[in-house]
Amino acid sequence: MRDSQLGIGVVGYGYWGPNLVRNFSINPAARVVGVSDLDPGRLAAIRQLYPGVATTARYDDLLKDSLIDAIAIATPVHTHYELAMAALRAGKHVLVEKPLAPSAELVSRLIDEADRRGLTLMVDHTFLYTPAVQKIRELLLKRELGDIYYYDSIRSSLGLFQRDVNVIWDLAVHDISIIHHILDQEPIAVSATGSCHVVGSPENMAHITLFFANACVAHVSVNWLSPVKVRQTFIGGSKKMIVYDDLEPTEKVKVYDKGITLDRPPESAHQFRIGYRAGDMWAPHISPKEALQTEVEHFVDCVRTGTKPISSGMSGLRVIEVLEAASRSIAKQGRPIPIRQLPRILPEETRATA
Amino acid sequence: MRDSQLGIGVVGYGYWGPNLVRNFSINPAARVVGVSDLDPGRLAAIRQLYPGVATTARYDDLLKDSLIDAIAIATPVHTHYELAMAALRAGKHVLVEKPLAPSAELVSRLIDEADRRGLTLMVDHTFLYTPAVQKIRELLLKRELGDIYYYDSIRSSLGLFQRDVNVIWDLAVHDISIIHHILDQEPIAVSATGSCHVVGSPENMAHITLFFANACVAHVSVNWLSPVKVRQTFIGGSKKMIVYDDLEPTEKVKVYDKGITLDRPPESAHQFRIGYRAGDMWAPHISPKEALQTEVEHFVDCVRTGTKPISSGMSGLRVIEVLEAASRSIAKQGRPIPIRQLPRILPEETRATA
Amino acid sequence: MRDSQLGIGVVGYGYWGPNLVRNFSINPAARVVGVSDLDPGRLAAIRQLYPGVATTARYDDLLKDSLIDAIAIATPVHTHYELAMAALRAGKHVLVEKPLAPSAELVSRLIDEADRRGLTLMVDHTFLYTPAVQKIRELLLKRELGDIYYYDSIRSSLGLFQRDVNVIWDLAVHDISIIHHILDQEPIAVSATGSCHVVGSPENMAHITLFFANACVAHVSVNWLSPVKVRQTFIGGSKKMIVYDDLEPTEKVKVYDKGITLDRPPESAHQFRIGYRAGDMWAPHISPKEALQTEVEHFVDCVRTGTKPISSGMSGLRVIEVLEAASRSIAKQGRPIPIRQLPRILPEETRATA
Amino acid sequence: MRDSQLGIGVVGYGYWGPNLVRNFSINPAARVVGVSDLDPGRLAAIRQLYPGVATTARYDDLLKDSLIDAIAIATPVHTHYELAMAALRAGKHVLVEKPLAPSAELVSRLIDEADRRGLTLMVDHTFLYTPAVQKIRELLLKRELGDIYYYDSIRSSLGLFQRDVNVIWDLAVHDISIIHHILDQEPIAVSATGSCHVVGSPENMAHITLFFANACVAHVSVNWLSPVKVRQTFIGGSKKMIVYDDLEPTEKVKVYDKGITLDRPPESAHQFRIGYRAGDMWAPHISPKEALQTEVEHFVDCVRTGTKPISSGMSGLRVIEVLEAASRSIAKQGRPIPIRQLPRILPEETRATA
Repeated sequence: MRDSQLGIGVVGYGYWGPNLVRNFSINPAARVVGVSDLDPGRLAAIRQLYPGVATTARYDDLLKDSLIDAIAIATPVHTHYELAMAALRAGKHVLVEKPLAPSAELVSRLIDEADRRGLTLMVDHTFLYTPAVQKIRELLLKRELGDIYYYDSIRSSLGLFQRDVNVIWDLAVHDISIIHHILDQEPIAVSATGSCHVVGSPENMAHITLFFANACVAHVSVNWLSPVKVRQTFIGGSKKMIVYDDLEPTEKVKVYDKGITLDRPPESAHQFRIGYRAGDMWAPHISPKEALQTEVEHFVDCVRTGTKPISSGMSGLRVIEVLEAASRSIAKQGRPIPIRQLPRILPEETRATA
Repeated sequence: MRDSQLGIGVVGYGYWGPNLVRNFSINPAARVVGVSDLDPGRLAAIRQLYPGVATTARYDDLLKDSLIDAIAIATPVHTHYELAMAALRAGKHVLVEKPLAPSAELVSRLIDEADRRGLTLMVDHTFLYTPAVQKIRELLLKRELGDIYYYDSIRSSLGLFQRDVNVIWDLAVHDISIIHHILDQEPIAVSATGSCHVVGSPENMAHITLFFANACVAHVSVNWLSPVKVRQTFIGGSKKMIVYDDLEPTEKVKVYDKGITLDRPPESAHQFRIGYRAGDMWAPHISPKEALQTEVEHFVDCVRTGTKPISSGMSGLRVIEVLEAASRSIAKQGRPIPIRQLPRILPEETRATA
Repeated sequence: MRDSQLGIGVVGYGYWGPNLVRNFSINPAARVVGVSDLDPGRLAAIRQLYPGVATTARYDDLLKDSLIDAIAIATPVHTHYELAMAALRAGKHVLVEKPLAPSAELVSRLIDEADRRGLTLMVDHTFLYTPAVQKIRELLLKRELGDIYYYDSIRSSLGLFQRDVNVIWDLAVHDISIIHHILDQEPIAVSATGSCHVVGSPENMAHITLFFANACVAHVSVNWLSPVKVRQTFIGGSKKMIVYDDLEPTEKVKVYDKGITLDRPPESAHQFRIGYRAGDMWAPHISPKEALQTEVEHFVDCVRTGTKPISSGMSGLRVIEVLEAASRSIAKQGRPIPIRQLPRILPEETRATA
Repeated sequence: MRDSQLGIGVVGYGYWGPNLVRNFSINPAARVVGVSDLDPGRLAAIRQLYPGVATTARYDDLLKDSLIDAIAIATPVHTHYELAMAALRAGKHVLVEKPLAPSAELVSRLIDEADRRGLTLMVDHTFLYTPAVQKIRELLLKRELGDIYYYDSIRSSLGLFQRDVNVIWDLAVHDISIIHHILDQEPIAVSATGSCHVVGSPENMAHITLFFANACVAHVSVNWLSPVKVRQTFIGGSKKMIVYDDLEPTEKVKVYDKGITLDRPPESAHQFRIGYRAGDMWAPHISPKEALQTEVEHFVDCVRTGTKPISSGMSGLRVIEVLEAASRSIAKQGRPIPIRQLPRILPEETRATA
């Protein structure tokens, strides 16, 4: 069985861990060998559901287990770096829940360690593996929307307040990773504002504007204290526009053949008249396949073939750079902060073999 | 008839003017005496619909007409100041479409002129007169929501691109006036970002954060280039929260008995646990009365009694101060700009008689 | 002007009459000559809005007016026959609000009279002229949906209770006319149930099933006593399905590429397996043009050219036959009642010249 | 463990069986002892998820197992009678998926057998245990809606076509059980129509009208071949009205303070005028608790205490009587069929001890 299946260890069995265990369990190319968590009740729950999985309160047991090839980390953010680094040092491939680590500095160290050892380091940016985002990316790559004017997203609900990160590290991280994935350029600066309505807690509400080198702009609105759940993204292009509503049961992505028309070329700006064009709306069929299932397949595949994951460590680092710049901007009430530009490594590139 | 009805002149019969003429016409205390517009076709349309109304291409004709007591201005923004000042100098009361004028400086001059002459100067902040906003204000005044945490609004659609003002002067102006009207405090600083997707046009998309002296925050998102029309406002409070959707035919205002709970007093910040509370939702009946009808009644009443209007010149000035500061912030990519604080005159106060 | 414009008289200026007057007024090929109504207040309203239109409390004045070529009738249903017959006898073309008359017998007499005199008799089945229904008809004619399995419609709201007809004569009449218009076959029998919740009033709620010669079925649910307004129609076909929601501001017609698949030909019924197919959804752009404007153009055109209208007297008669049969079925608690089959006259056919 | 937990056997592990096993497993007062199914793959799936549960392809193994006190049946409808009767004869309490059996005759035999042996016979009318239906029942019992005028329901989606029962036995059964549960009277006759769009299959679309002794009426529309899923129920009363949308994530039940008003008492029917009243809307908080969890608790409780279940065999019989009458009406294209009236046994009544 060792030869045919990737041995998986999972650390953390709280909110997200059960989804990881379930998806690795149904993947025929993987096998969950062990799970560690500090809570005995959770470990008992695992044993009842998955009698073949070893449970332990000591993370070290996973690291020492030679049947485990890769570690999936689903613990609070402030523990990510330490747990991931220990896994890499033990020679394990690593999949880490988003965000990868609490700072770009720490993420860089993980990337270096993984690269040095020829191990796969992947961050769990789940939304990149949803059929909806994949469809949107496909439409944008085919330039169905023309030039992209904006990405404008709202992600809010009541809860889950976190203790160790603010709302942008918890929710905006999804949009930042999507923006990096679907646009063919990256933001160069950010202006963000945030507010905290519970004394002693991190910011629970924030608004982020990302500037690009051209007229494209992205805006992300996140809120842990909203009366209703909202997951809506508007993407405007010169030819078409998209409304992506992740709460819609089936028609998640709607493509509008709408826009403005200009009577004269933009050069003669003083002369043109703006017109409005309203055409059909089209909602492509979106597969109901669970994103995490696709992601787990991709992780297993990357480990086996040495391919860089779509959500590689470097991809996670680019996201963290934006989050850090946004946090600095929030502290300065919206003052624009430049974003450090990183070399863009295409997912197609393979890493050097260890 | 002179004694019983206020004589009204309307200048501008494009998009908004017909609504003014119609609402003044059905108000028994007013009479539309004349309308001026530069387009002969529009004037012909008026004559067909309202045979008793004089039409003219010369604004001066209205100013000279002694049967006209008040002028309603519905022309492009850059003409507001000149037309309003001329009307005041001719001794007419004035109702001006929003925004009152293109700068705070010009608005101040109009206020001074009106005050000096004891004339009513009112700005057409129509939303303040909608039954929905009146209901929200009533709920907030009664502290039904507890402490207000945030006001977060989206106002977008495809069109109508304007030439002489950007999208915040056209759309965000509604939210700024609502915020001033329903909250018991005013913003002290603003961070805003905006973008322009049509070369040579003003910004067609903007995001504005308003900071208050306490933890309350307001955010306004406006867009002329959206595939679908959105008019949604979320208001979060410590006790309840509101979703106000102006496109809903009947249930425009929904009050959610939802929120967070804290186990310990906020003082012992390290100890408390956040809980979530989900109770009933309640949508109060909202009268279908047209806002402009109420507004016209209020204008006529203010002129007759000398009462300061709810949307007085000073109220319009406070809005303009925010728009100007937001425009400056947009030019600096979100850098926060303080907002000049003006003395707040309660609507209940009456002005000194001339 | 006589030569170039059709002279129109309108009788009844209550709920629907103002729409007729407005739409005939803006039609360049027609001119509203006079309006009659029994209520002096309504007549005054007309004179204020349309100073060029003569008003009268005597219907006879319209009939005698030689400038009037055609009469549009918008009065209670029980008066339709008498007013329409008088108009035809006075040599006027006639447009009658739906339903054409309270019985098939009376409708037949109107048809005979109009045919004998070579006059246009048209019934105001407004929905046939909506861009949405026109688009649906176009899709069905092109067999985009394959074989039509069903038409299932809900039309409900709070009010307007009528006194002289029950809810099927008021609301289901719309669906019956649409069904006749978009399907290439007509119902052969009907089973209907209805109930009355206000003592002394006609039925305010009804459900109608229409049987066809093949497996196609139509169902219409109507209700004057619904807490919310609903205008939804589902059309199922062997290839595609439609959801038509008339309350949607823009995406009124949605075409779903969904359905079932059979593994084996239907002949070997015991063997096949049913599968489900889910593809894209598509919402064709629907023109915002007002239906009554199109209808008035069509009426004027039919009068001028002698063409049979789409909603001819005979078309109205077929609708009445269904309503009468449905009423009989309601009285018998759903017992099926056959529908008298009438010769189908294609709209393209022209009538014999008088 | 025998003393403290009810031993459960489940037969059938297809669509619904896994839900039963899961809910009995998490109920501390029950223990799933064994599951039988004919498909070895399903049995393997059970063993993986529930290693402590015995699996078998022979139903008899469950009946013979003395650790099993009660049998839950989740197999095709045509097998219900035989399996349930065998279980009762083996002295087991029985919970049967809806509908209880394919005919009233067979259901009566099961009731007799259960009564004779003092065993609990319960039918799995899951909707009766949803928090939404419980809330609606509570509102109706408190007469919040006044007199009930109608219950009008739509239950449609694409699939799941069944082979051995038509759509009313599969979907309308839910509404019939709800109607019996929330109204204080039962239907006396039924008119129904149905159609079949797949040759050789049972009816996939049907419309049912239920008549009551008074003006109350119920209508149920069911469809296996709908492009979109709909689960909507409208309940009209003399004082208030309800819209219950089971697909709404949180606001499933909306109570509208709307209705008609009569100027005169209904006695002087010729004189009154109908008015319309529009007040607030209120959406009570609905618990997110899974219905089957509540149902399983109730079953265990009924077995232990000898209480008649809410969804007792007799309650299931009343539902079957309606389904049979509706089927007869469908065969006669809507002809009304009287419904056999059964003695109503209040859920509060306890059965005679065995």
